[in-house]
Amino acid sequence: MLEQIEVVKPQDIEKRSFEILSEILGQRKFDPLHEPIIKRVIHTTADFEYADILNISPNAIESAIKALKSGSNIVTDTNMAASGINKKSIGRFGGKVLCFMADEDVAERSQNEGITRASVCMDKASVNSQNQIFAIGNAPTALIRLCEMIQEEKISPSLVVGVPVGFVNVVESKNLLKKTGIPYIITEGRKGGSTVAAAIMNAILYMITER
Amino acid sequence: MLEQIEVVKPQDIEKRSFEILSEILGQRKFDPLHEPIIKRVIHTTADFEYADILNISPNAIESAIKALKSGSNIVTDTNMAASGINKKSIGRFGGKVLCFMADEDVAERSQNEGITRASVCMDKASVNSQNQIFAIGNAPTALIRLCEMIQEEKISPSLVVGVPVGFVNVVESKNLLKKTGIPYIITEGRKGGSTVAAAIMNAILYMITER
Repeated sequence: MLEQIEVVKPQDIEKRSFEILSEILGQRKFDPLHEPIIKRVIHTTADFEYADILNISPNAIESAIKALKSGSNIVTDTNMAASGINKKSIGRFGGKVLCFMADEDVAERSQNEGITRASVCMDKASVNSQNQIFAIGNAPTALIRLCEMIQEEKISPSLVVGVPVGFVNVVESKNLLKKTGIPYIITEGRKGGSTVAAAIMNAILYMITER
Repeated sequence: MLEQIEVVKPQDIEKRSFEILSEILGQRKFDPLHEPIIKRVIHTTADFEYADILNISPNAIESAIKALKSGSNIVTDTNMAASGINKKSIGRFGGKVLCFMADEDVAERSQNEGITRASVCMDKASVNSQNQIFAIGNAPTALIRLCEMIQEEKISPSLVVGVPVGFVNVVESKNLLKKTGIPYIITEGRKGGSTVAAAIMNAILYMITER
């Protein structure tokens, strides 16, 4: 029953995966700074459409790396995304991965004001200047709130990863982000997700740290 | 800048999303017990290919519901999948969501024996008979280990969700699962992931509980 399984050592599985997906991508050329991100997202999703829909603004990677090296935290809109980002890597520079979605004060304000918890989380994150990087994999409302705060000059993040997934205001929220002038990484269209947000952040972290 | 955004109340966003994705699915007919799963996975991924690649074995849903109502835990192969499953829902029947990936004894055994942590996690889960449901969204090695233990009659789960994603032994591990005779839900091919695993489990939970 198990004879069809190729035996690959644990430490070699990821390497072998990247070899296979690189073969499938074939002769396609990418910006050398974008390539690790594109490949890690495909590694995470097995969805080659991401090679076409990932849109990375000029200097977004450089801006993110500078912020991470200065100890920036990464704020996410889901605990899933937070749990997928490598804490050891970001911890080397003093940064943390933060998600406020399960906080009681967030639930309370969301209830009282009739706005999403994800949106309240962004407000909560905005008061700490060490929160320079936002990774939004789920809630367009979080991304819209970030864009509002950027427009109101309350925050000026070093990077916003805007990859919410779905059907209500998802495309619109990404379009808003593109107009802010803030360094961004988005997925054009409806696709994205918490695993995609985490993969993008890990790809950037692995450019500058060991695991 | 924000005028293009449709205002949807937080509690209505998910409902509106399901309406939109149902419209896109059009006249397609699904088994009524499978439909909530297919739609929730599309809601989670915005990837309509899942309507074609989700493969649910006969009576898988019934078997899972019976186990959940009897207080079965759900064991996952990633903390991401675990954090995406609704603990309140499963908690109503006494069940828990368990992931052993971050456990020290798992890391140690993985190191000593040269097998993946995900595989060791399945061994660790196998000794508790309350662990009747497994949701594998990432590691084919976890799914392969489950299939081995099933073959050796060490375990006989009520449901295995086999939706690892990627390039090394992913398809092969799903094919193994199909041959075990255990109730299964898989995604044919390379696609899947932790968010997909969580979405499948939540869809089943929401058939039998409030949120």
